Amino acid sequence: MRQAGRYLPEYLEARGSRDVLALSRDPEAVVEITLQPLRRFDADAAILFSDIMVPLAAAGLDVRIESGVGPVMGEPIRVAEDLARIGSFDPAEHAPYVGEATRLLVKELQVPLIGFAGAPFTLASYLIEGGPSRDHRRTKRLMRDEPSFWVRLMDRLSEMVLAHLRAQVEAGAAAVQLFDSWAGALDPESYRRHVLPWSRRILEGLADLGVPRIHFGVGTGELLPAMREAGAEVLGVDWRVPLDAAWERLGPETAVQGNLDPTACTGSWEACEREALAVLERAGGRPGHIFNLGHGVLPETPPDNLARLVDLVHERTAR
Amino acid sequence: MRQAGRYLPEYLEARGSRDVLALSRDPEAVVEITLQPLRRFDADAAILFSDIMVPLAAAGLDVRIESGVGPVMGEPIRVAEDLARIGSFDPAEHAPYVGEATRLLVKELQVPLIGFAGAPFTLASYLIEGGPSRDHRRTKRLMRDEPSFWVRLMDRLSEMVLAHLRAQVEAGAAAVQLFDSWAGALDPESYRRHVLPWSRRILEGLADLGVPRIHFGVGTGELLPAMREAGAEVLGVDWRVPLDAAWERLGPETAVQGNLDPTACTGSWEACEREALAVLERAGGRPGHIFNLGHGVLPETPPDNLARLVDLVHERTAR
Repeated sequence: MRQAGRYLPEYLEARGSRDVLALSRDPEAVVEITLQPLRRFDADAAILFSDIMVPLAAAGLDVRIESGVGPVMGEPIRVAEDLARIGSFDPAEHAPYVGEATRLLVKELQVPLIGFAGAPFTLASYLIEGGPSRDHRRTKRLMRDEPSFWVRLMDRLSEMVLAHLRAQVEAGAAAVQLFDSWAGALDPESYRRHVLPWSRRILEGLADLGVPRIHFGVGTGELLPAMREAGAEVLGVDWRVPLDAAWERLGPETAVQGNLDPTACTGSWEACEREALAVLERAGGRPGHIFNLGHGVLPETPPDNLARLVDLVHERTAR
Repeated sequence: MRQAGRYLPEYLEARGSRDVLALSRDPEAVVEITLQPLRRFDADAAILFSDIMVPLAAAGLDVRIESGVGPVMGEPIRVAEDLARIGSFDPAEHAPYVGEATRLLVKELQVPLIGFAGAPFTLASYLIEGGPSRDHRRTKRLMRDEPSFWVRLMDRLSEMVLAHLRAQVEAGAAAVQLFDSWAGALDPESYRRHVLPWSRRILEGLADLGVPRIHFGVGTGELLPAMREAGAEVLGVDWRVPLDAAWERLGPETAVQGNLDPTACTGSWEACEREALAVLERAGGRPGHIFNLGHGVLPETPPDNLARLVDLVHERTAR
């Protein structure tokens, strides 16, 4: 499950008045917050507490994470001259706290640690729009009308993301997840032309490290075959695509992660259990199924539902 | 194209300081605003200027349309007692202005007029969430955990929507469009169980009138076969689903409306033309293709792109 514990009361306490970027720079806080859900739930893996904007902030961009809104840019990146504001990004030099937190965590954990990063299209959308966007209209316009700007931006972002993920694996992460949260806003042709080459560059650039690579986006039903071509072993799908339909599009060799609707965990345990069993039913006991929510845990989720959910899945599947 | 002309300067002038609900109650304003895009573009149909919340406001609910936000409720509908606040809705008595505007328009127009309404799930989401929602979490929770509340609400909404659409056809609308804008937030099983029966009740309840019925939602790739079962002759699809993939899921007997990405019209004409030709290519000249955007026209769209787009489509297709 993603968003390691941001919905837990002990997270709110550990966080105090700091924002996610400030927390990400404090290895002790990262260790504590990453471990919190593991103390409550018998989960099979941990995911590094961080934010997709961490490498961009480390490269000198003016990013802040507004509570209830998401990442917001002081000055968006919209013309060629703006690209100069993206500074260099060497993980050891500009974000040493990521490697440090990862090393500390790997020592503490009994389960594998998943590293993570945002994918170039999603990062580009935050940089260009200046914050979350319903339609990504400026991003799509630049993508279509300013190819040289687009290529320079995507080159730069994919280089940073690759370095960021390599550093996490080198520090001990046992798998990586590349989040292209907003890729589902694109039609498949646009995705293939303007996004896939850069996501592939990152995922292929990790191949020599030999760790499983997970690739995820929201609303990506039509993009699954193209996203598979980017090179990950595991595709994460949201709750909109029934798992059996996902495998039809991906082929049986691909592992699939998902896909309980996060809203199903916010009400009664009975509804949560019913929907979770439907997901397992669709997965049909395939060995390549990683049970997960179809997107992040929602803030109103009763932690007890999640604890019961983990136990239910363990009980119903071979461990 | 939907949102008849809300992006045009002459609309902003006609609107003055009134909101969409106030305009919808003024037949002269509705006629003027519905005709505006027809004066600029050689479109093949007009769509009644209105808002999906019109019947709910007419039934006494405290709804306002906030500029840049969307429909917002004074008091959301969340428990059984709240249902009593939805008053009765007889179109002739509570919304006579809709029939009046429709009759005036049909006299003026050289092209068919499309009537329209929001579908019960989308209306329910606005009533329950109290405004636009990213995840529809309260709506889905009630849908799963409070079946008797859900059934009563959906019964009531589908009855109102059916009456509203029948009144538009009886006043002269030549086709109807039922917008389930947010249905794409549901997985197919939840859609079939909690939404489809009521959408079907509306569409089947129009069958005797003999007008074409169009059914549309955003992000509905996985729902298309189920939405087809609701009974419409035409399914509208957004830009995420390539038209040939849509027909594979719907069968060749279904007409398909769509699906140019609205952001493609906001930049250069060259990009707009290229994306429009890709849509036509996917449609492969099928007689059951109604060219349209995959969602509403965005406010920044240069009207000249739309005029050229209509001409391009006419030029490239048999008229």
